[in-house]
Amino acid sequence: MSTTLPAPLRSFDDLSVGQEFGFGSIRMEREEILDFARRYDPQPFHLDEAAAGASIFGGLIASGLHTQAAAFGHIIRTGWVKDVSLGGTEQVVRWPAPVRPGDEIGLTARVEELIPSRSKPDRGVAKIRYIGRRVSDGTVVLDILGTHFLKR
Amino acid sequence: MSTTLPAPLRSFDDLSVGQEFGFGSIRMEREEILDFARRYDPQPFHLDEAAAGASIFGGLIASGLHTQAAAFGHIIRTGWVKDVSLGGTEQVVRWPAPVRPGDEIGLTARVEELIPSRSKPDRGVAKIRYIGRRVSDGTVVLDILGTHFLKR
Repeated sequence: MSTTLPAPLRSFDDLSVGQEFGFGSIRMEREEILDFARRYDPQPFHLDEAAAGASIFGGLIASGLHTQAAAFGHIIRTGWVKDVSLGGTEQVVRWPAPVRPGDEIGLTARVEELIPSRSKPDRGVAKIRYIGRRVSDGTVVLDILGTHFLKR
Repeated sequence: MSTTLPAPLRSFDDLSVGQEFGFGSIRMEREEILDFARRYDPQPFHLDEAAAGASIFGGLIASGLHTQAAAFGHIIRTGWVKDVSLGGTEQVVRWPAPVRPGDEIGLTARVEELIPSRSKPDRGVAKIRYIGRRVSDGTVVLDILGTHFLKR
């Protein structure tokens, strides 16, 4: 993972397949985990310390939707795609391991596929894999394959 | 779509492939669209009316992550899986059309695949497709294939 954030992309054509980028890390705070769960995923193991302790997870875990959104929000905030993003159409998201309060998650991206649009020469489709790893032990906790439209 | 919400599942074994369920609808309010975008997807077309008007979307649209989370939160809140949910491991989410402030989205689910666990006889994996349709014209705006662990 690079220690400096990537410069803002100027065009879809700045990318090449296999390129990797690092975005530093995010920390999943208990209060935000509870707040997200109350709004968008009110299941006991995301919401309630005692119920979570008695669940198969043995303690509070973040909603996977929260980890996905927090990671994406962080990457958007770095400004990496601010000049080129035309939105996304699909994400394949996997949560291979639970995320717990206080976990710090390092975020990287790898360009998997680049498809220039044939009908619209001003844009292309980029498939980018985002990986989130718990910093303390390297465990992959988030794996997103995102499909984005980017300006050329 | 059924007009009454489904009863809470008692077991993975209550489900059969091809079953369909209706969960009523959600309404995507402008203030919540803006709030979600500020936290988790701060792109101009999700955040700023003027910038969104000048974008390819011609006006403010909800973050796809927000539509995904709002739909999921609503379904969780119906209590359908409250007695059986052991969490999820994967979602394949597609956003075939934009969602705008005030849009009402009807939510349905269809059981696609059921895989009893061989190593853990107390649970099974259910693959369920959730579809969100704009009520005003039936356009599909959300398509999630979710993979869930459910108690037996």
